[in-house]
Amino acid sequence: MTHSGATALEQLKRIVGADHVLTAAPDVEPFVVDARGRYRGAARAVVQPGSTAEVSDVVRACSEASLPLVPQGGNTGMCGGATPDARGDAIVLSLARMRAIRGVDRANATITVEAGATLAAVQDAARAADLLFPLSLASEGSCTIGGNLSTNAGGTAVLRYGNARDLVLGVEVVLADGRVWDGLRALRKDNTGYDLKQLFIGSEGTLGIVTAAVLELFAAPNARVTALAALADVAHAVELLHAMKQALGDRLAGFELISARALHLSRKHHPGSPDPLPGHPWYTLLQVDDTAVDPPLADAVETALAHAAERDIIADATIAQSREQAARLWALRENISEAQRREGQNIKHDIALPISAIAQFVAQTEAAVIDAFPGARVIVFGHLGDGNLHYNVAAADGADARQFVANTPAVNRIVHDRVVAAGGSISAEHGIGQLKRDELAHYKSAVELDLMRRIKSALDPRGLLNPGKVL
Amino acid sequence: MTHSGATALEQLKRIVGADHVLTAAPDVEPFVVDARGRYRGAARAVVQPGSTAEVSDVVRACSEASLPLVPQGGNTGMCGGATPDARGDAIVLSLARMRAIRGVDRANATITVEAGATLAAVQDAARAADLLFPLSLASEGSCTIGGNLSTNAGGTAVLRYGNARDLVLGVEVVLADGRVWDGLRALRKDNTGYDLKQLFIGSEGTLGIVTAAVLELFAAPNARVTALAALADVAHAVELLHAMKQALGDRLAGFELISARALHLSRKHHPGSPDPLPGHPWYTLLQVDDTAVDPPLADAVETALAHAAERDIIADATIAQSREQAARLWALRENISEAQRREGQNIKHDIALPISAIAQFVAQTEAAVIDAFPGARVIVFGHLGDGNLHYNVAAADGADARQFVANTPAVNRIVHDRVVAAGGSISAEHGIGQLKRDELAHYKSAVELDLMRRIKSALDPRGLLNPGKVL
Repeated sequence: MTHSGATALEQLKRIVGADHVLTAAPDVEPFVVDARGRYRGAARAVVQPGSTAEVSDVVRACSEASLPLVPQGGNTGMCGGATPDARGDAIVLSLARMRAIRGVDRANATITVEAGATLAAVQDAARAADLLFPLSLASEGSCTIGGNLSTNAGGTAVLRYGNARDLVLGVEVVLADGRVWDGLRALRKDNTGYDLKQLFIGSEGTLGIVTAAVLELFAAPNARVTALAALADVAHAVELLHAMKQALGDRLAGFELISARALHLSRKHHPGSPDPLPGHPWYTLLQVDDTAVDPPLADAVETALAHAAERDIIADATIAQSREQAARLWALRENISEAQRREGQNIKHDIALPISAIAQFVAQTEAAVIDAFPGARVIVFGHLGDGNLHYNVAAADGADARQFVANTPAVNRIVHDRVVAAGGSISAEHGIGQLKRDELAHYKSAVELDLMRRIKSALDPRGLLNPGKVL
Repeated sequence: MTHSGATALEQLKRIVGADHVLTAAPDVEPFVVDARGRYRGAARAVVQPGSTAEVSDVVRACSEASLPLVPQGGNTGMCGGATPDARGDAIVLSLARMRAIRGVDRANATITVEAGATLAAVQDAARAADLLFPLSLASEGSCTIGGNLSTNAGGTAVLRYGNARDLVLGVEVVLADGRVWDGLRALRKDNTGYDLKQLFIGSEGTLGIVTAAVLELFAAPNARVTALAALADVAHAVELLHAMKQALGDRLAGFELISARALHLSRKHHPGSPDPLPGHPWYTLLQVDDTAVDPPLADAVETALAHAAERDIIADATIAQSREQAARLWALRENISEAQRREGQNIKHDIALPISAIAQFVAQTEAAVIDAFPGARVIVFGHLGDGNLHYNVAAADGADARQFVANTPAVNRIVHDRVVAAGGSISAEHGIGQLKRDELAHYKSAVELDLMRRIKSALDPRGLLNPGKVL
């Protein structure tokens, strides 16, 4: 360790207290490996400040000592965005101690929270005020708001409420030089200058460190209808989406696409799962919510689905008759990821497309994949309502999964080339981190990369904030 | 004119055609005065390119000749943001010829339009596809999408659909050096790097020139209920807003506050206006929309209002029984601005506050204004659902309006000091332009101003894009 590094560590201990600077290998270990175990890095120390002022002092001290900083929340990211690189000179700045709910403003329908609050804690605090914070993710028990904002998290309620960035009214950010930008506004309209907050949201800690945020809350739904429809192909699913939006408007809160193969895997690895509409190639799972108490919601959904059946958009459909039935339908969808894990490794893609381009993309890309890798199994599911597919490619039945995964670069090229040609995105909701940094550089235009670099230089001229991520 | 200036004009004529470079004083006149006649500037020429490639070439030529550029759409702005300064060296770059609707994608529910398309033309094109583009402004017949995006326009549908920036999926921008950034994505999820588009939206042409955009479309409402409620004070109006959001959720599309004085003015200058609930100090106008055909919407609104009456939140209410009655209720609100014009000049403020802070703000600020200017009449109305008030101060009855308006700086200080102390914004939906540039510098923190200047320098290092606006 250099002299200035040692001095900096002493200073960090003075700022946050010696107990909150971890340097012993077993203490540091959980912070230098990502949740999926794909990335392992090294860090000089893990620092856990307890307040915005402490974050500010930590960043200033690291800046003076030229130490790179890797901000980290719940460490549940999918792209290695919160994992330091292997050089070992970085400080992991964990926001986990800053978990206060600073306040709920019921009349303004907003909540002010610190970055380290878990998503579940924020949902709970909203619920206690008889309101809804709609962001919802599989990892909500451990992921933090700071991470959700830094990665612009998506999830299952985007169709109605938008992505994480759409739920943020204000942020507090510690800048690369340690200054604090207090942008904690709780306003739905504010046209005083540049929209700085959206720069920090989704930039994965490379432009500044979000320490707190004002989030928007909503009236909670009082009625919910869940339905499963069976369809001949993806084009019909897109037609059904349009028809349901026309009929139900904002009540349509979820519209998930599931291929027969994905459903089969989900049921195979979760015995006892229902099979309500057997024998169809594609399915959509619909969730319809209403804030009204006891509205004629089931009737409206039934009428809309019957109308779709008359027009041959759907082949069959079933509406859950109880909360338990609804939960069992949702479990079919939610168990797909776990089923794939049990099936063995595969090559994953988190992509978005214009909804109008999805049917053709699915048909042509599967053909191209199978042409290059005969027998490969394509598993398609995702948030069709947002144009977001989880498009995973697994080895042929009986083939070695580990060996197949070595084809990742070639499979990525087939899939991502077609995504980009169709006007899509190679990262819909998981971000870039380390995982897709090279893909980003490959597909972004020179102009866009230059714009991003200019912004990065303007806000972090010395490049100390989360180096090696995104750009 | 300098030699390089003359050469540049020749070059501009070669790029866009001589017919599209205006230099004669009468031709230039409409482009150098703002809509409200508050700002008059001068320009070397008005240039009207017909394509993105021509905009790119114009910007490059002006950059090489060091000529400042002032982008302009429908020239309907409220803050002088599209008016050149008096020096006369600027080129006004009018986007008015670029008005193509490039395409409507019905399945994706998006429309791609050029910057010079009027808002009304975009609304019409959406309607022709049986969809809704929800942005709606008084000037929609002449304002353009480019101007709407550059100023992040608000309007009457923000409560349900958000501001202009919330309706944009992608933009095409000509940068300060003439390069074109093709960010015309039609995706609802895209986490590949920094959110550049929101930087260009709302920055009033100071960071780049928006030449086209992909906008989001929605299912059009099939049912609409309009109601007027009478209330004892603003605190009760805030309570009613909360109650209606809880009962009606996203169906609540408009929630306007009107003071008795504003209503009185509206009726005074528009004889024949109804007076449905006479004798109350405050009113709220509610609009409730539903995409469903023939839903029990009027019943739901009536039940919710009856419940509010039982809890003494409202003193009285009336629900429009026909489209004509609804239009007459809306006219009461919409005629306020015209009524004020006929009454004589006043001192206007376009402010936003946390909704929970509005009641106290209204009470305390009126007291402070009257204390400083005895007899002054405060006229309050606006989009309470968004926390956005139009807070106007007029001379005492019978006093000289012109003379009173000379007090603008002192009145601004009283109003804006209280807005900022309550965590509010001094420009909710009209922007900064020239009008509020000094106020912005007065109220923004040093950190935020520095961030804005860094962004400006990064994207327009020579300061040629719309100088003297915003920053």
